[in-house]
Amino acid sequence: MKTLKTQVAIIGAGPSGLLLGQLLHNAGIDTLILERQTPDYVLGRIRAGVLEQGMVELLRQAGVSQRMDTEGLVHGGFELALDGRRVNIDLHALTGGKTVMIYGQTEVTRDLMAARREAGAQTIYQADNVVPHGLKTDEAFVTFEKDGETWRLDCDYIAGCDGFHGVARQSIPAESLKIFERIYPFGWLGILADTPPVHDELVYARHERGFALCSMRSPTRTRYYLQVPTSDHVDNWSDQRFWDELKSRLPQALADNLVTGPSIEKSIAPLRSFVVEPMQYGRLFLVGDAAHIVPPTGAKGLNLAASDVSTLFNILLKVYREDRLDLLEKYSEICLRRVWKAERFSWWMTSMLHRFEEHDAFSQRIAESELEYFVGSEAGRKTIAENYVGLPYEAIE
Amino acid sequence: MKTLKTQVAIIGAGPSGLLLGQLLHNAGIDTLILERQTPDYVLGRIRAGVLEQGMVELLRQAGVSQRMDTEGLVHGGFELALDGRRVNIDLHALTGGKTVMIYGQTEVTRDLMAARREAGAQTIYQADNVVPHGLKTDEAFVTFEKDGETWRLDCDYIAGCDGFHGVARQSIPAESLKIFERIYPFGWLGILADTPPVHDELVYARHERGFALCSMRSPTRTRYYLQVPTSDHVDNWSDQRFWDELKSRLPQALADNLVTGPSIEKSIAPLRSFVVEPMQYGRLFLVGDAAHIVPPTGAKGLNLAASDVSTLFNILLKVYREDRLDLLEKYSEICLRRVWKAERFSWWMTSMLHRFEEHDAFSQRIAESELEYFVGSEAGRKTIAENYVGLPYEAIE
Repeated sequence: MKTLKTQVAIIGAGPSGLLLGQLLHNAGIDTLILERQTPDYVLGRIRAGVLEQGMVELLRQAGVSQRMDTEGLVHGGFELALDGRRVNIDLHALTGGKTVMIYGQTEVTRDLMAARREAGAQTIYQADNVVPHGLKTDEAFVTFEKDGETWRLDCDYIAGCDGFHGVARQSIPAESLKIFERIYPFGWLGILADTPPVHDELVYARHERGFALCSMRSPTRTRYYLQVPTSDHVDNWSDQRFWDELKSRLPQALADNLVTGPSIEKSIAPLRSFVVEPMQYGRLFLVGDAAHIVPPTGAKGLNLAASDVSTLFNILLKVYREDRLDLLEKYSEICLRRVWKAERFSWWMTSMLHRFEEHDAFSQRIAESELEYFVGSEAGRKTIAENYVGLPYEAIE
Repeated sequence: MKTLKTQVAIIGAGPSGLLLGQLLHNAGIDTLILERQTPDYVLGRIRAGVLEQGMVELLRQAGVSQRMDTEGLVHGGFELALDGRRVNIDLHALTGGKTVMIYGQTEVTRDLMAARREAGAQTIYQADNVVPHGLKTDEAFVTFEKDGETWRLDCDYIAGCDGFHGVARQSIPAESLKIFERIYPFGWLGILADTPPVHDELVYARHERGFALCSMRSPTRTRYYLQVPTSDHVDNWSDQRFWDELKSRLPQALADNLVTGPSIEKSIAPLRSFVVEPMQYGRLFLVGDAAHIVPPTGAKGLNLAASDVSTLFNILLKVYREDRLDLLEKYSEICLRRVWKAERFSWWMTSMLHRFEEHDAFSQRIAESELEYFVGSEAGRKTIAENYVGLPYEAIE
């Protein structure tokens, strides 16, 4: 068996794995990333596009922000459309100057891939049968196959950045993990289109026909979503039907403004809340979707992965530079404090804005009243705004 | 049939009926109150003891605040005990100077009874078979029996202040009402004792053994509560068992400080959320518990009745003085806006602080995370504080 050696083995070359790799590389810590798919496959996954200020700063710290800072759209607010009524959530004013950045996950990944190439740090794509070993020993390693050959990668630590369906979480004994989960009875039908955005801010629409979201990737590319039943299928949705349904859920002035066009991507994603505890098992650290999933309402998925990356990076930095081995055991509890707050916010935004057919009249009215109170109270709007721009990262000390 | 005549017939001589009667009487509008029970029975019901600033001001406006302003305890905050950790909610600082008044409902009722006696306004106690008639006509009237004789009370309007089980709501055709309801799977076991309060503020305790509340009526009289299963019975609870269980749910420093003593009242009350819409049917106006019930967490029941009273009083004042008949149809929608916000807060406080055995692990953890976020964020604490001191009354214009 051929062998390789690195300090931190990273499983998964999505944005979390690449960002962690870049931060560690810049700090002089050696990494090797193993990815099951090809770079094009990774870039083909259309995902989030709203970056919290904390993630924006982390990308700057990693030195990969040049294109984002040029092409990204800084948003100082977003809009709630509540059964036709429009309410502005002024993030900038409510948070004392914070904003979010509209910049697609695909572009973040592309920038990180380029930076890693340039840095000469190694990523092995199409690595099959990746398996972590020796997690509770002093000799952790990862085995994988590449072009028919089996390899052994010796390492100090393993970062599991391989998503919800990845091998990292599955390699932890089930009895060592506690799972918290909620499956929502609906999904999001999303399309990507080369049309100008209907509004210069994101619009989250609550409507009796169901939730809708008007998002964007750039001034010429839009991403729109509709709440649909879990059982629905993308083949049932012609572009025409999608645009008609979207218009029916938007305030009239927005519906009148909506520019339609052919979709360049169309898919249905289920909505799920999921957390596994702890996020660590010996020398293996779960990062991002490998440990937790949020429903996309609130745009927290990618941002939560970034805060895990920040925590793990800062811990590893102190481990290698100051021999602070005590910090390793704190990774999970530090991450989970922020994870649960983001899970709470994502669950809340989902609960407030979607239509739950199976809820009784009291629950439906309480959800309306809750939203009514929160948008009508300055303190309430502040709670929405401070969560939307992202709660602060915890310092590692 | 003997007949009587008044401008506003009030059914129920609890605090809402008496307060409405006093405000109308002071304004020169004639009222007659019909009450099924005796004064002593009404005074014997141990109820709420936390008055919002709006209700305090309304009692002052009614001229019945003298004893309250002398004996009542002004509280500028309350305490949350979260699994042993103590968090102060500084109402005064968080709301820009607002407070609540600790003064028992029994004392409010006693003061209102005395004022009504002094004013010479009529209350007929032990009125049997009270029935409102002609609600959708120009000739509304109420029939009742007193000492075996049947009476007819002619009136312009009828205020149904007779509580959840009263006749007022039941006299509206069921098909004209929409009901929203939630029954909680637990009740509150409460005791009244002549002991000094364990803490100078109210303490709301969340604990894995269940919710507990340390409340008070005066510096020498306490009111303590424990969450118990709905199926539990007061006979199962000796004073000793009550005190032991209460101590087990409080932070150690408070448990060590708790002065126990014989209970002078002990009862179990179910927890319910209930709203009926609309709160009006022709000439009949539902006030307080006749139209809505909140679980007691958050102390909103009596206060919500007071805001209904304020709304109805201000409408009737403009009806009689300025012939503003158009306002009569607005009573329900004005009240319901505030009612639903208080229902929302009461449901939220109940959901956050109680133990729900049947909730899945995700829901339990979300509730913990929600509370953790709200007490850790200044904006979050403000939302708790502004609801606790009471959202503003709507002006009638």
